[in-house]
Parts: sequence; structure tokens; C-alpha cells
Amino acid sequence: MSVDKVLARASACRVESRARWFELLRIPSVSAQPKHAEDCRKAADWVRAQLAEIGFQAAVRETQGHPVVVAHHPGPTGGGRHLLFYGHYDVQPPEPLELWTSPPFSPAVTEGPNGPRVVARGAVDDKGQTMTWLEALRFWHEVAGGPPCRVTVLVEGEEEIGSRNLEPFLEANATELGADLAVVSDTNMWDANTPAISTRLRGMLYTQIDITAANKDLHSGLFGGSALNPINLLTRILGDLKDESGEILIPGFYDDVPELSEAQRKQWDALGFDEKAFLGGIGLSVPAGEVGRGALERLWARPTADINGIWGGYTGEGSKTVIPSEAHAKLSFRLVPGQSPTKVLAGLRDFIVDRLPDDAQVKIQVFSMSDGIEVPADSPWVTAAAGALSATFGKEAVLMGCGGSIPVVSMMKRVLGLDSLLVGFGLEDDQVHSPNEKFDVACFERGIDSHIRMLAALAER
Amino acid sequence: MSVDKVLARASACRVESRARWFELLRIPSVSAQPKHAEDCRKAADWVRAQLAEIGFQAAVRETQGHPVVVAHHPGPTGGGRHLLFYGHYDVQPPEPLELWTSPPFSPAVTEGPNGPRVVARGAVDDKGQTMTWLEALRFWHEVAGGPPCRVTVLVEGEEEIGSRNLEPFLEANATELGADLAVVSDTNMWDANTPAISTRLRGMLYTQIDITAANKDLHSGLFGGSALNPINLLTRILGDLKDESGEILIPGFYDDVPELSEAQRKQWDALGFDEKAFLGGIGLSVPAGEVGRGALERLWARPTADINGIWGGYTGEGSKTVIPSEAHAKLSFRLVPGQSPTKVLAGLRDFIVDRLPDDAQVKIQVFSMSDGIEVPADSPWVTAAAGALSATFGKEAVLMGCGGSIPVVSMMKRVLGLDSLLVGFGLEDDQVHSPNEKFDVACFERGIDSHIRMLAALAER
Repeated sequence: MSVDKVLARASACRVESRARWFELLRIPSVSAQPKHAEDCRKAADWVRAQLAEIGFQAAVRETQGHPVVVAHHPGPTGGGRHLLFYGHYDVQPPEPLELWTSPPFSPAVTEGPNGPRVVARGAVDDKGQTMTWLEALRFWHEVAGGPPCRVTVLVEGEEEIGSRNLEPFLEANATELGADLAVVSDTNMWDANTPAISTRLRGMLYTQIDITAANKDLHSGLFGGSALNPINLLTRILGDLKDESGEILIPGFYDDVPELSEAQRKQWDALGFDEKAFLGGIGLSVPAGEVGRGALERLWARPTADINGIWGGYTGEGSKTVIPSEAHAKLSFRLVPGQSPTKVLAGLRDFIVDRLPDDAQVKIQVFSMSDGIEVPADSPWVTAAAGALSATFGKEAVLMGCGGSIPVVSMMKRVLGLDSLLVGFGLEDDQVHSPNEKFDVACFERGIDSHIRMLAALAER
Repeated sequence: MSVDKVLARASACRVESRARWFELLRIPSVSAQPKHAEDCRKAADWVRAQLAEIGFQAAVRETQGHPVVVAHHPGPTGGGRHLLFYGHYDVQPPEPLELWTSPPFSPAVTEGPNGPRVVARGAVDDKGQTMTWLEALRFWHEVAGGPPCRVTVLVEGEEEIGSRNLEPFLEANATELGADLAVVSDTNMWDANTPAISTRLRGMLYTQIDITAANKDLHSGLFGGSALNPINLLTRILGDLKDESGEILIPGFYDDVPELSEAQRKQWDALGFDEKAFLGGIGLSVPAGEVGRGALERLWARPTADINGIWGGYTGEGSKTVIPSEAHAKLSFRLVPGQSPTKVLAGLRDFIVDRLPDDAQVKIQVFSMSDGIEVPADSPWVTAAAGALSATFGKEAVLMGCGGSIPVVSMMKRVLGLDSLLVGFGLEDDQVHSPNEKFDVACFERGIDSHIRMLAALAER
């Protein structure tokens, strides 16, 4: 039966799979940094070439930002199912560079508890995960001449900066990108040996707050006691964001936050998540977030307000007695299904303006907005995928939530009417978005095998 | 009478005086930045050479940091008064460079409301002010063969970073540096036409607060709701520093803050300070600081807590969804006579530790500490100096306070038992510590003439 032949081929070609993965990791496609625009295009073209090699009609398509790769394969004649595979070739900035044990864009193989792992920016998010299904499609091509069903591929280059230009692209190409189901590998497994399907994602509102006061930097001795200090003001405003119990104090913030269903709570409790160990891995011991909520509830089903960056005044060595003219912060919110990023933004604006004295001006820039989403846990797609995962891992697949946001998932639902199947092979200790991001080789290879089986299982239903 | 001859010589040599002033301004002696250590030494040696040229026994003396220039002149035989002139050759960092209209270390002459002005880092603070008395001493040398009394000169290179290494130096050389009075030009006039003597200075406590939490940067989606965010924590702590009325909430902070005497309040009210205009000049309209206090009281006789810099997380372009592992702020306090920097530091430490959750660590670095000081307003020195100033400006000299801190003044009182005479020629709009720092040529030249007259007046009493 051809699935086994495809699996055999994959296991005979581990070295080649890893080599292709490394090629992609060597391209520093950092979407947030203009200096890497050409590298983003290089990554897009590399993906396009891979798809062309395995029988897809593939093209690099322009957007207002970094390009998108779109590819099509008709599958076996006679139609049948139509799957859309989504991934992104862009990565987070590697900074702070000094904390990397090896250069972020030179993949290095090191040993970990689960055997060899590959350290590089994008090792897992999302180049490594994208390669798991790209390689699965490759082996279906090499063994069976193509995938077992019709396949469309969409690989974007702006996921790490909020997929700003993807929505207009989806709208402009809605017909071409229509399918029965989107398959997305950008999430985690439950643990190194337990595969998982994510049925929830949090949404996101990412803002930058710019506060300005005096028209120039001032001497704190000559003006201190009379002139407004925008950094003091910024800390007053942001310091008010939450109360002692971790509750976010923006008026109306919780209006559309649903309580977790008893069924969901029970299912998650059954997972026996060990938050102490989770935090211990990053040198912490006390849970932050809302007091009186379960650990997985806080991570998967409650909103957050995190300051991702802050700067203003003199930040160099030694001392400078300055009252600066401006202060800045990057503030983002993780949102749950039901919350509207637009409504939260309006609340944030009021919250800030209420605390703003006459002499201060505020500018709020929005870098990304996406809804939280919930994928029907009982859909036949999920059942089919769970079977393929269990066969690969020899263990029941777990249905879990995910605290992260994949804007494109809600976007594909909204614009293309597509449900997404979220099957990823990352692990909690992958240091995603951090220095020394890694992906276990075992996860990578089982990811390939899982996608080979899922293609067959999803094609058949 | 020789004072007039010296004044005539000075007015005949304005071009040469300005040339010497520019030479010093061209040396980028930024004490806070290690890369400029050699430039600091260069500035010290330039000052030493100037003093040697005009008959002083001058030497560059080593410290743990940037060197100190010490010079001696016996004056006319037969002893008499002994003055110590203090200045500093170091300057503040010029950043942000993009806001300068001309390179900070290439003095540029532009036109202002009071005629020509010189734009450069250090134009006034304190290179320009130091040059006013250096030039006065030069012309006394050229006309009368030397100053009218015994003179010791002390020019340090670490004033802008808290004069860290000066105290041990003063202690080690207390006998050599003994004098009847210290003369310091590092303060402002009342306005462009009204000379002033400052009888108060605020003290200073300058700290850096470093908060650390997780052992690495984290993904805000995977950890948001469970992991402590050190930036949120830092803003909570610093946002608590003051209440709505601008009162500083560190326990015991005001214990040693004396109320202003009625006499002092009356004298300051009589100055008719226009805070609206003062703030208007920097684009502000509403006084900050403690509600219900007079403008000059807030600037001269009340303590402050200003955040001079803050940084943490991602501060680049675009967005990065990170929960960082650390956050930092530079926080300084202006203190009034009576307050102990050590006691305020202890209070700050408790204030922070009280708000610190188990998983966060804090480090508090201290960059500078100095007491506020009050100079006896009725001393004969002040009377003599006021006479010389009035003669130069044709206008009564004003007795004022100063919101800034000159650590060395309290240090000289403590270690050498020296009172200081604070006579400066700066103006409120000099943009001290800011881009485009300037010094009006008229202030510079009247400063020289005032010092020529003060040397005579102080020598005689």
C-alpha cells in the first residue's frame, strides 16, 4: 500500500531532508527588519523552487510587503478532497545576538534529551514545521507521482509581523485559494512523545505607544519639578494596566471573554499539565497572570497584556541627568475567541487618554490584529488526523489549546471560509522567538511521517 | 587702577578669548563614554597648558577615573586672600546626534535674541563657564603679572558622571587644596541682563534599576498568562513612585525636607518668575511636580524623582512578541539640603523590594550621590561678588536658588571645609545637556569681565 512505500522512502532519505531544511534555515529572512527584505524574497524563491521540483505549479506572488508563494497540484485525476497547506518562511529577529551559542543562521546540531536537535532561528518556527509537510509532499511525489488529493500551497513572509498584507491577497485570490480544509503546522505537540491537535488559538492586538511632552530633552536639575517627564507618565499609565490579582483594568476588556465550559476544563485538567515544571524550565517558580484561574486556562483561554518592549531617555553607559522629550512602549494583548481587537484597541485608547495630562501627546500604532479562534474538536477532519498521528507516534493524539496567535487562521476562516487543522510538532522548550531556537530532529522526522499519513487519511474522507 | 587696565586688555582680546574657548570645545571629552577616555585626558592637558602659560604651577593629576588638573599661583607677595577656582572639562554625551543642527564638537556661531551665540556640547556647561575665569586669570597675568591674590585651580573631568573619584582626591590632597573660598561658575544668571549668585543647590541620588525574571526571552503566546513580565513589573513599581498630586511615595522620603522660610519665599516671589513663559519655551504649559507649591519652590527647594532612561525587550522596528528576561531604568532624585542620599537610597530599595514578586531579582546601581547645599546669603564674599557683578552689568545682582546639583560643592564643604561662591553666566535657554547646547557670546564676555572684577573685590576683603 502506497503510504508505506512513501514512509519507507522518507526514512531512506533523512539526510537529504535535513540538508534541504538547513538550506532554508541559512537564509536570514527576518520580516521585521527592512535590511533583510532581499533575504525574504530569497526564501520565497527557494520555497517556490522546491514546489516546482515536486510537480507543483508554483509562483512567487507580490504583495505590498514580502512576497507570498502559491502553488497548485491537481492530485490524482477525478477530483476528490482539496487541501490547502499554509506555512510562513519569515522568522523573528535573532536579537540579542550575544546570547546565541552558535550563529542564528548557521544551523548547528547539538545533543538534547530527545537526541539530536537543530539550533537556528526558524529551526521550528516556522521553517522546520513547513518543511515537515513540504518533505511529505516531496515523498508522495517521488513514490506516487504526486499527493493523494488536490493540494494548494500558501507560504507567506509576514507572519511574524502580523500578516499585514495577506488579507488583501486572500481577498484578491479567494477563488484560486478555495479548498476543503487548511492544514497548518505552526503549533506544538503535548510532549516529545505525544502528538497533538490544537483546537484553540488566541488572537492578538499588537500596538506601539509613543508619548511626547517637551519639544526637546531637558536638564533634570534645571527643569525637574516643573517639566512633565514622559517616562514617568508612561510608567504611570502602563503600571495601571493590571491590578494585584493580574486582572486587566481596561474598561470593558472582559465583556466578551467567555467562561471556559466545564467539559473543556475537565478535558484540560485530565492532561495533568505541570506548571511548576513548565516555569522551572525558564527559571521561574510562581505563576503570573490572573489569580484563581487554572494554568492551561490562563495560557489558552484567558487574555493577556504584555509589554514587549520599552524605551526612552538615556539608555547608554553611566548616567545622564535628562528629562527626555518622548517615551515609547510596544504593548500587545493576547485575545480569546469572542474578543474584538478593534474594541480592545478603542478601550486601550480611552484608558491612555484618560491618564494623559494636557501637555502630553500620545500616538498609538497598530502592528497586528487578529481574532482568537476555536476549531470544532469533533470534526471528521480532526478524527482522521488524530488517527494518522496516533499511528505515527504509537500514542493517542491529544486535543489541546494554544496560547499563541496565528492571524492567518482567523483570516482564512473569515475570507476563504476555511476551517484549519492545526497539527504541529514543536516542543515547549524550543525557545521559539528566543536565542538558540531549536527543533528536535525526532520531531522533524515524525512530522514528515505524520504528514505523509495525514495526506492519505484526509484525502480519503 | 589696574582692574580697568585688565578689563581694557580683555575687551581688546575678544577674538583670542573666543579662539581659546573653541579649542577646548573641539575636544569631545564625554566622561560617561569609555571610548572618549583619551579625549578627556586631552582636555585636561589642554587646561594644564593654559594655566602654565599664565604663570601657574600646573599639573595633570591621576585618579581612578579621568584626571584632575591642579594649579597654583602665589599671587602678590605678602599673602592675603586665597581663592580656589573650580571647573570641569568633561561634558554630557551629545546623543541624540540627529537633533543637532551642527556637529556637537565643531562650535558654530549663530544669531540669537541676545546677539551671537556659540552652539556646541559644553559651550556653557562647563567649558564655557570655566573659560570665563581662566580668561580673567589670563588677563590679570598679562596686565599685572598675576592674579591680585593667591589662587589655586581645580578642574575635574567627572562632574557629569557624579565626580566619583574626586572625593578621595580631595581627601588625599586636602592641605594642598586648602583656601579661603571656592569660586564656581556652573550656574545661571537670572536673565540675559541680570547677573545672579546662587545660594542654594539641590543634591542628587542617581541610580540604575535592573530587574531580571526568566532565564531567557520568551514567546508571549506560549508563556503569556503564566510567565512574569519584568517590563510590566518595572512599570508597576515606577508608576507607583508618585501620587496624583506629584508627591513622592517612598516611605520617609520627606522626613528631612524642610519647609521654605517665609523670608526666602518672599524674596523668591519678589523675583516675579514667569513659569508659563519658562514652560512655554520648551513647548509645555502645565507645571508638573507637587501641586500647591510655588514654581521656584518646586525648582529650587523641593525634591524630585525623574526617570532619566528606560529600556527592555524589543525596541527595534515593527513588532516582536517577546516577554523579555530583563528590564532597566535610570532613576534619579534631586534632593534638598537636609535630605541624606544614603537614607533615600535605603527607602528606594525597600520601596522596590516591597513590590517585587518571588521570581524577580533587582539590582540597584548608584552612579552619584550628593547633598543639597545652602550658601550663607549674607556672607561678605557674596556682598563683594555682588558688587563686582553689578558694576559689570549695570544692574543689581539677584540672589537665587538652583535646581541642579554640583556634587563638588558639598564635597568641598565636607572635605575641605570650603564655602563656595556660585556665580555663573548661563541662561535658561542654553539647552544644557540637550542637543544644540549654546552659550551667548555676551554672557561669555561679561563673565570674563565679572571675574576680572571679582578677583579684585574678593582679594581685597
